[in-house]
Amino acid sequence: MIGKVHHINFLVRDLDAAVVRWERVLGMPVARYDRLAGRGVVAARFRVGETWIVLVQPTRADSVPGRHLEAHGEGFFLLSLGVDSLDEEIARIGEGSFAGPVRSGAEGWQVRDLQAALLDGAQLQLTEENPA
Amino acid sequence: MIGKVHHINFLVRDLDAAVVRWERVLGMPVARYDRLAGRGVVAARFRVGETWIVLVQPTRADSVPGRHLEAHGEGFFLLSLGVDSLDEEIARIGEGSFAGPVRSGAEGWQVRDLQAALLDGAQLQLTEENPA
Repeated sequence: MIGKVHHINFLVRDLDAAVVRWERVLGMPVARYDRLAGRGVVAARFRVGETWIVLVQPTRADSVPGRHLEAHGEGFFLLSLGVDSLDEEIARIGEGSFAGPVRSGAEGWQVRDLQAALLDGAQLQLTEENPA
Repeated sequence: MIGKVHHINFLVRDLDAAVVRWERVLGMPVARYDRLAGRGVVAARFRVGETWIVLVQPTRADSVPGRHLEAHGEGFFLLSLGVDSLDEEIARIGEGSFAGPVRSGAEGWQVRDLQAALLDGAQLQLTEENPA
């Protein structure tokens, strides 16, 4: 079951400068920093209700986020929906609707991307927070 | 205070076709349709946790959403943060950080857009749901 918007990622070129601007607008301090070497990013997260708003700075130009930043500039990157069971949702939606394998995000989140073409250009992803 | 992600809007060219695709992926029926003649859009909403995911189809090319669709194609349009009081947040963040006046959204929501340049290209907005 899809229960919430788990996180929303925005790409930025300069994480430290972006954090200052977002802290001012959101009126709250950044909650946590993450470094995902395999994905080639550093990130900063804000907690807004039940959702993480995540600022993501690529650390390599040849990563998926790095190429997206180069092609599209700063701004929205992806929306990730929180699910109880990734396996169940993949079975329900169908393997062919996904792009790439399950991978690990921050804090051991298990995430899998949906094909963007499936949803009118929207970049969606599913996240299971606490895999069994 | 900013309490939650109130809604996330995605632009689509064909609302009826998009609803079919999103219903399949989200595993739930669309919750509500809205027509905002002044804004020049028709929209369909899904309820995911405390957030509305909104598909928006422009009905006029010369509207703000219509011009955005033309320039950027389908996909993410804006993220709106739910606030207790729009007046208080505008006073806190500063009038100069906003673009345009307060306007009415679906169901009488009062919304105001932040300047995109302020936040590294992210299109953010504030929504007050039940103005006094």
